[in-house]
Parts: sequence; C-alpha cells; structure tokens
Amino acid sequence: MSINLEPTIQQIGIIHSCFKEKFGIPRQAGLVTEAKAELEILSPYDREEAFRGLTEFSHIWILFIFHAINNEWKTCVRPPRLGGNKKIGVFATRSGFRPNNIGLSAVKLKSIVKKKNKIIITIKGGDFLDQTPVLDIKPYLPYADKISKATGGFASEAPTKKNEVEFTPDAYVTCREKEKSRYPYLQKLITQILENDPRPAYYSQKPSRNIFGMKIYDIDVKWKISKDKIIVFAITNCHSP
Amino acid sequence: MSINLEPTIQQIGIIHSCFKEKFGIPRQAGLVTEAKAELEILSPYDREEAFRGLTEFSHIWILFIFHAINNEWKTCVRPPRLGGNKKIGVFATRSGFRPNNIGLSAVKLKSIVKKKNKIIITIKGGDFLDQTPVLDIKPYLPYADKISKATGGFASEAPTKKNEVEFTPDAYVTCREKEKSRYPYLQKLITQILENDPRPAYYSQKPSRNIFGMKIYDIDVKWKISKDKIIVFAITNCHSP
Repeated sequence: MSINLEPTIQQIGIIHSCFKEKFGIPRQAGLVTEAKAELEILSPYDREEAFRGLTEFSHIWILFIFHAINNEWKTCVRPPRLGGNKKIGVFATRSGFRPNNIGLSAVKLKSIVKKKNKIIITIKGGDFLDQTPVLDIKPYLPYADKISKATGGFASEAPTKKNEVEFTPDAYVTCREKEKSRYPYLQKLITQILENDPRPAYYSQKPSRNIFGMKIYDIDVKWKISKDKIIVFAITNCHSP
Repeated sequence: MSINLEPTIQQIGIIHSCFKEKFGIPRQAGLVTEAKAELEILSPYDREEAFRGLTEFSHIWILFIFHAINNEWKTCVRPPRLGGNKKIGVFATRSGFRPNNIGLSAVKLKSIVKKKNKIIITIKGGDFLDQTPVLDIKPYLPYADKISKATGGFASEAPTKKNEVEFTPDAYVTCREKEKSRYPYLQKLITQILENDPRPAYYSQKPSRNIFGMKIYDIDVKWKISKDKIIVFAITNCHSP
C-alpha cells in the first residue's frame, strides 16, 4: 500500500540564497553562519497574522523541497562525512535522494519584514540552493527539539577539521570592493564555506585536480589547493546572471 | 504563484500508537517518554538496506501527516501553552492547522526489526495519533539539530507544572492486571499523560466539568479532578475495538 497524499502539498515560499549551484553549499545548516538568505512567502500564504509571534523564537525549522534532485530515490547513499566510501541507508542520512525529497533545516531567524507588499523572512546559517521551494516554517522549540542526551553515529559532532583559507592580494582587493558596493561580509562568507571544504569526498582523495570554482551570488570564486591550504586567487563577475 | 508539488509525496509508513483519539496525546514529542509506538514501513520502501546505519542514532525525526485534521488551514491558532486565550500565527506554532498539514517530531529510537516480513521501527516519546501516515524518517544530528543557544518565546522550557496523579484501589488492581497480560508500564504511561494535563485549556479554567475519559490502546481510562489532584477511578475495556 502506498497512498498518494497529493492534494495537500503546496509551496508556501521560495528561498533567495547566495548559493546558485550545489557546489559550495554547506553540508548541514548552521555550519556557515554568514550564509544569509531571504525566504519570500507566496500568495495566498503571505498573511502577516500567520507569522505573529514567530520573531520571539531565535531559530526556525524550514521544510523544503530538494528541487535540484529529480524524483528517484536511492536505498543507499555515500555520505561525504564518511569520506564517500561507505554506503549507508538513505534514512540514516539527510541526503535528498529520499522517497519524498523533503529537506529539514534549522536556521537562525533574523527578521520578518514587509517589503513591497511581500513578506520577507531573513535567515542565517542556511544550506539552501537558490530558488528552493519551501513547504513549511515551524518554530524551533528548545524544550522539545534540543535533546541533550541525543547521540548520533557518524555525525555526533560538527566536522572539526577546518581548512586554512587565504586570499591573494588581488582577490582580497576585489573582495573588499564587492563588500563595499553590495555584499558585506563576503570575505567571511567565502572563508567559512571553504574552511568546511565543499569538495566532494573523491576530490580530497585525488589531489591531481587542484583548481576549483564556485558561484556565490553573481560572483565566480576560484581557488586552488596548495598543500593543506586553500588559496582564493580570483573573484570575478559571472558572465550569465 | 502557488505551485502544486503533488506527484512527489508518498506515504512511506504508518504509526501504530496507543493514542486512539486526539484527547490524551501529549502536546509535544518527548513529554510522555513511556508512549511507545511502532512505525511500520510500507512497500516499496520496506527495504532493509535503506535503514542501514540508522540504529547508530539515539533519536530520529519523523515527518508525518496530521491525518485527523482536514485540509483547511488557519492563519492564527490558540496554543494550549498560552492558556488558550491568546491567538498567534500558525507558523509560530506546531499546530496541525497549517497549509501543508505536515508534522515534525523527534523521538527516541528503540529498535528496528523485521517481523513477519515487515520492517517495524519501535519508538518512544511520540505524540502520534494511531494510524498516522509517515512521510519521512531522518536521523537526529546532534551537531546540527541540538542548538544550544536557541531560545523560544512561549515555549522555551517544558511545562513545569505537573499534576499529582492517584489511582483508586480498584483502578490500581485492574491496571496491574493489564500490565501483566499485555501492557507493561501502563500505570506509568497513564500517569505521565495525566501529569501533563491533556485537557483543552478551556476546561482547566471552567472547573464545572470534572470527569474525563480517554482511550489508550483498547482501554477506557476515566479520571476526575479533585482539588489539584487527578484521580483515576476506572479502567475498562473499550466496547468497540
């Protein structure tokens, strides 16, 4: 028996995020605290009263669709935290390749404002691809959700190994200019992303390739691996928007 | 714009719970630790390998459908934690009256076993109505989900006021018999439920009515309020299954 629950599921919002492609997205919410995003509430759910009281909570849950993953599910996946070598059941991971491709992330709630007649919820620490469809917002209830005794297999603690990140003088200057004109904290954001090494596990085991790029906002960021250091050497505008 | 995401949502499991009706269900997961439930995985998702590694986690998230609530959503609700007097936005609560009636609960994972060719996941501390449809199971990741700094409006801490619960000698004897024959820890379960006062807020303000009943498994439990005490005075078999 597999009941289709179709008629009830609706998109209530959309995420506007600095992450324009999968590469670079933190592996869990909360790892890159500078990752700011805007959640725009869509009609007919954009009713101010429906959010009354939410700003009293420091954090919220966002239920979203892994929209860049198609409908297929996999029984097993290889979590990056295990070096990409070990297969475990999809239900023992937070991977998007699940029967219902619904994701769950706890993020910091910064503000809820009405801009040009739209309700915009600003969040920090998200791990969302730009344009992610949102299904629900729930308060993070400390007494029920903060389970002090919880322990968890391969993911009990945050990844401790942080890469050292440096900027070349040129990259540093461009970064500062972009911070002044439009993206404050850009350097901190890029540093936090790269500290957590966004490369798929197989790259860190095959040091043959050592130049990488990712798209943050409308910016192309290029970096290279030099010994155990990550060196950002180019920050340029994307050619296409 | 409101995109219907229908085709992707499927029921992967069903909850077999001691809570046969809404009255008596704890207001959040984790409050009634003795509330044991079985989650049966449905075909085609009942593949053992899809759960490989899950038992390494002490707790899991369950995404479920509030199936006893019909499709309507309310912009505002009156949370029992606020005495039922104050209206707040539905997105500032965990109420089921939301645009997508999806619920989220963290529960203790006891075991995963194969019984008569079915995968059965036993959980504790749930707040599920019997027959609840399940959409997803995810590991509780301590490093991402246990947010030590989180604070939360009206629900920062668990309800502290616990009712004192007593059993009459008759009720006590019947309870012990049922514990021996089929439901170990029944008295502890009933006590935990009643300590948290399952009555809707308006009852605790209108002391005119003081006899109540609820259905646990196939058992009718009757209790009365006497001053600040709750006295369980009858435990009988339900007439209908």
